[in-house]
Amino acid sequence: MAKTIPISLDVMGGDHGAEVVIPGAEIALVRHPDIRFLLYGNENVVRPLLDKYPRVRDASVFHHCEVSIAMDTKPSQALRQGRWKSSMWKSIEAVKTGDAAVSVSAGNTGALMAMSKFCLRTMANIERPAIAAIWPTLRGESVVLDVGATIGADAQQLIDFAILGGAMARALFGIQKPTVGLLNIGVEEVKGLEEVRTAGRLLRETPLRSLQYSGFVEGNDLGAGTVDVVVTEGFAGNIALKTAEGTAKQIGSYLRSSMNRTFMSKLGYLFAKGAFDLLREKMDPRKVNGGVFLGLNGIVIKSHGGTDAEGFASAIDLAYDMVKNELTHKIAQDLVHYHRGRFAEAAPTSEGDL
Amino acid sequence: MAKTIPISLDVMGGDHGAEVVIPGAEIALVRHPDIRFLLYGNENVVRPLLDKYPRVRDASVFHHCEVSIAMDTKPSQALRQGRWKSSMWKSIEAVKTGDAAVSVSAGNTGALMAMSKFCLRTMANIERPAIAAIWPTLRGESVVLDVGATIGADAQQLIDFAILGGAMARALFGIQKPTVGLLNIGVEEVKGLEEVRTAGRLLRETPLRSLQYSGFVEGNDLGAGTVDVVVTEGFAGNIALKTAEGTAKQIGSYLRSSMNRTFMSKLGYLFAKGAFDLLREKMDPRKVNGGVFLGLNGIVIKSHGGTDAEGFASAIDLAYDMVKNELTHKIAQDLVHYHRGRFAEAAPTSEGDL
Repeated sequence: MAKTIPISLDVMGGDHGAEVVIPGAEIALVRHPDIRFLLYGNENVVRPLLDKYPRVRDASVFHHCEVSIAMDTKPSQALRQGRWKSSMWKSIEAVKTGDAAVSVSAGNTGALMAMSKFCLRTMANIERPAIAAIWPTLRGESVVLDVGATIGADAQQLIDFAILGGAMARALFGIQKPTVGLLNIGVEEVKGLEEVRTAGRLLRETPLRSLQYSGFVEGNDLGAGTVDVVVTEGFAGNIALKTAEGTAKQIGSYLRSSMNRTFMSKLGYLFAKGAFDLLREKMDPRKVNGGVFLGLNGIVIKSHGGTDAEGFASAIDLAYDMVKNELTHKIAQDLVHYHRGRFAEAAPTSEGDL
Repeated sequence: MAKTIPISLDVMGGDHGAEVVIPGAEIALVRHPDIRFLLYGNENVVRPLLDKYPRVRDASVFHHCEVSIAMDTKPSQALRQGRWKSSMWKSIEAVKTGDAAVSVSAGNTGALMAMSKFCLRTMANIERPAIAAIWPTLRGESVVLDVGATIGADAQQLIDFAILGGAMARALFGIQKPTVGLLNIGVEEVKGLEEVRTAGRLLRETPLRSLQYSGFVEGNDLGAGTVDVVVTEGFAGNIALKTAEGTAKQIGSYLRSSMNRTFMSKLGYLFAKGAFDLLREKMDPRKVNGGVFLGLNGIVIKSHGGTDAEGFASAIDLAYDMVKNELTHKIAQDLVHYHRGRFAEAAPTSEGDL
């Protein structure tokens, strides 16, 4: 029998909970029949749905959990209420025990990150986890991190993000040496935040085997896809992500109202419907649903809380790809090389010092 | 004779210099015949152009300047080379002497800000200037600041930006009490940068006469137009602005390639051409060209360096509106009220302290 991919799901997470998670699991399962689910949720809610989705039921092991974390629960509160027992915790814990290769939740970001950190802990040599987003660009897709795990990052943390994001780009896009840029304002060396400049200098001075440092990039480079990986701290990253989402919505709304204005424009819309469908598909936020928590001892995928079944299925697809392409292994490999490189470099000097 | 509006122009600024500035001045002059220009530039370049645009020539006083600031000049270098004598400096200086009511330049942002600060100085009680952008939204337009004058801002500086931006919104949109939001990640009180949280608390505790504080906003609220004024520090503000520009370009490119794909889509495009023209106009970055330098003793408008004559005319239009609607006066008024309010509040306490 072929190897299966075990994925744990927090069935109660998100604005719609099981109503979206189970149908989403069904869609993903059709695309990847080798997935096996570990489902965590309240049996009164989940059992009836599993009867409606026998394909999911037959590919799953269900675990009843008394506690569900609400979408407005603060991280500290979520930890107090939900540690050891909530569906969110149990789903993450399955990654820790090795029962699952990856966990997916549409629950609230703060709570999910707090629990993931508490349960999985950050990797050795990594101080802070990051949330990586997949950004659709004119060239394809880029990895952008951190989009909101923590506010602020010093030079070393930015370099850690570069390594984590680089490994994810290798897993996701299959490129050997992804290009990495540091998000800044102005591309001249003299400009921008001091920690960004320091990180840039270090990345330039000590080339890494796993990535190619391309210098500073600006906000407009995100959509252009100038580099494979864009590194920034979580405050600016989150604002950039939400600004792009807002701008896409805004233009979509302009487009709809323009097309609805006159008889001729409506007729034109009908003729060009195929083109509009293509555009809608390109701009569909569900297609790139899923923030990847990086830097922990295990991978957790955060789906948009308000997504539908198709969107949740995309988050599962992403989780599946990350496992298939051995993201965890690639990250570990890249980190070992980075720190071995630093050690090798430091060695002669320290001998001299002694 | 009706009162004229004197506007000084750095004719040599921008990627295309006089070739764009003089035709731009012509367009603005047709719309606002009461403008009088003070032109600063190199006579060998400008004189022949003025002969081609007699309307501008007749409404202008031209001043020859030996030095022009190149687009790649660093701020410190620009100050060394261009202080007292460059077209950029002279154009700003005209605001200081009162000969011009406002100055417009398409020159490089760093140099223009450095010279503006050096020449005009920051206003009393304002520590740092800001660059305010006009952001097209689903509700109309918003003022967003700072979009790149300086990196970082403490709570008091964010409040200053709120007052400056509020005054600009009053001048620009004619609303008595504009709504103001602080850009943050997450709308809950517990989230986000400490200085943003402190500024939020202060704005909530001490309501201002000139604006209505609406709490935190996120990146997607920029395009939605949730508030009239969005306040942030320059790093995040600049990244948000450029990300939005990049996303708009990206979607425009998707749209063009979708419409060009099939015979039917091309036909549809022809039928709906009016609607597409309307959309293009809505998304035209030239329409909202112009960053306003706020917090200095005088108003300086920065036009995009790469804009064309139509775009430069928009920057002049903006300058004209700011003068007509007495932006400088409104800012001074709001600042006096803010600091008088703080004084009145502090008075009983200080009496008790003594």
